Amino acid sequence: MNLSTYASYFDVNIKSYNFPTTPENLYDPLNYFLSLGGKRIRPLLTLIGAELFGSKKESAIHASMAVELFHNFSLIHDDIMDKAPLRRNEQTVHTKWNDNIAILSGDVLLVKAYQELAKQDSTHLTALIDVFNKTAVEVCEGQQMDMDFEVKEDVLISDYIEMIRLKTSVLLGCALEMGAIIANTTDENRNLIYDFGQNIGIAFQLQDDILDLFGDPEKFGKQIGGDIISNKKTYLLLRAFELANAEQQKELHLMLSINDSESKIAKAKQLFIDLGVLEDAKNIKLKYQEKAIFSLDSIKVEECSKNVLTALAEQLLNREI
Amino acid sequence: MNLSTYASYFDVNIKSYNFPTTPENLYDPLNYFLSLGGKRIRPLLTLIGAELFGSKKESAIHASMAVELFHNFSLIHDDIMDKAPLRRNEQTVHTKWNDNIAILSGDVLLVKAYQELAKQDSTHLTALIDVFNKTAVEVCEGQQMDMDFEVKEDVLISDYIEMIRLKTSVLLGCALEMGAIIANTTDENRNLIYDFGQNIGIAFQLQDDILDLFGDPEKFGKQIGGDIISNKKTYLLLRAFELANAEQQKELHLMLSINDSESKIAKAKQLFIDLGVLEDAKNIKLKYQEKAIFSLDSIKVEECSKNVLTALAEQLLNREI
Repeated sequence: MNLSTYASYFDVNIKSYNFPTTPENLYDPLNYFLSLGGKRIRPLLTLIGAELFGSKKESAIHASMAVELFHNFSLIHDDIMDKAPLRRNEQTVHTKWNDNIAILSGDVLLVKAYQELAKQDSTHLTALIDVFNKTAVEVCEGQQMDMDFEVKEDVLISDYIEMIRLKTSVLLGCALEMGAIIANTTDENRNLIYDFGQNIGIAFQLQDDILDLFGDPEKFGKQIGGDIISNKKTYLLLRAFELANAEQQKELHLMLSINDSESKIAKAKQLFIDLGVLEDAKNIKLKYQEKAIFSLDSIKVEECSKNVLTALAEQLLNREI
Repeated sequence: MNLSTYASYFDVNIKSYNFPTTPENLYDPLNYFLSLGGKRIRPLLTLIGAELFGSKKESAIHASMAVELFHNFSLIHDDIMDKAPLRRNEQTVHTKWNDNIAILSGDVLLVKAYQELAKQDSTHLTALIDVFNKTAVEVCEGQQMDMDFEVKEDVLISDYIEMIRLKTSVLLGCALEMGAIIANTTDENRNLIYDFGQNIGIAFQLQDDILDLFGDPEKFGKQIGGDIISNKKTYLLLRAFELANAEQQKELHLMLSINDSESKIAKAKQLFIDLGVLEDAKNIKLKYQEKAIFSLDSIKVEECSKNVLTALAEQLLNREI
């Protein structure tokens, strides 16, 4: 089965998902937010995970929905915390309504995720909820670390990797593992597929850091340089400070204080290339990508059934840098 | 077993409950908030519910913890939405830290509630999660209705009762029902004990509306008149507008526009007594109290095992009005 089969199957299901009609101020924002779409990689991973280990995608649909609802809950709340005006080029919930409504509709969406999860067969429920809970806690911890890093002076690269692991990557691992649980596979396979997802997630986030500055504006689909404009401590910036000599440290600080976006972006690019940071970022991204593929290779199922995950990894990670 | 036995058993458990230590900004607020204590009626209901139907309180401790964690999650988020500076005479989380931290630590607390619930025996898990999810959704809906009513002109008394049912009462029903589920009782008993909790909750909230204006400041424990000072549409105010003739309607509007708190409170009291609103409020509170007792009476277990719930209802509902 190929990716688009999973995608259209999931699409039909999420489109037929109904929230109650009242209170309107609680549920209208959720209908709106879900209608904005998105890549919907995560729920597909649950479906693919189930089929990889011999189950039907239909058996994992509720867990898959739970993953997508959870992801949207976290976006709605993150957008409040980040004061983000736009998401997928449309107004965020707290902008279109207000903060209170975004808090509360996010809350109920998290509960709705659990409600979907609880529709799965009761034989798997404890295991599914355990991995889902663990992941949900980690995603919150990652978001807190991300906020802490905004004001923290001495962020280590290892802290940064841990933050992106928690904030964005564990959910990819969890999505796949939930599929594996539903298919009753071995603990070893569960761990391997989780590791695959987690490492793909870290590689993807590192690529995102690179593309944010070095991406082709037309292909990247969002404003170039957003991270550096806001002085965000990404892998690139942290690695630059790690490698810079005293003179270059000064240059980096000067660059961070430039007000004009275009000059700032140009200067950052030049410094990051000179310091070898761009190269390092590509290499570390590749390292996580290879780790992921190694985990996938180690899974003992028919090789051809892995093709859809290999294709997905290619599609996610071979965007032009 | 009497109330204080349950209370001290729960107290030991909640005090030994540990959050992770990092990220500090995520978990310090939760340690702080839980240390503020509170009445902790809800978790006791779960323990009592389990014993009423023949189980040991120990068998329900995780569900009981889940109820308390959930309740605290909802308080942390409600306090942000209500811009409340104080809770239990101490700073609220969003005041002591900030809104973002209060949102995120509330989120993780909700997940922690599910984590506790998932520790219950897997044979009950689906049933427990179903009632917990349904209740959590309702609590959010109740909070949304409460916020909507602040700006809504034509709030009916039936809407108000529905709001307090959802916002505060269903969790009491849920807490008891979870105990009943753990004790493997009949569906009929589950429904009866739920109804008992729910109706006690509605009666309690109506009493709270009354005490907020007519309570003895020394016994009530919080500022008298808070509701009327903020023109909150409580049962008293809604019923007053329902009963008032044209002349009295004008008087009510005038009263609502008084700036001096003391005069406003005095005028409100006088109007509410003249209109018979205080009497009506006491009567409707009693009606829900009687409904609750009728449900409890209908439960087919040894009468003496109900004593602890009768005592609890007395304690909650016979505060001096």
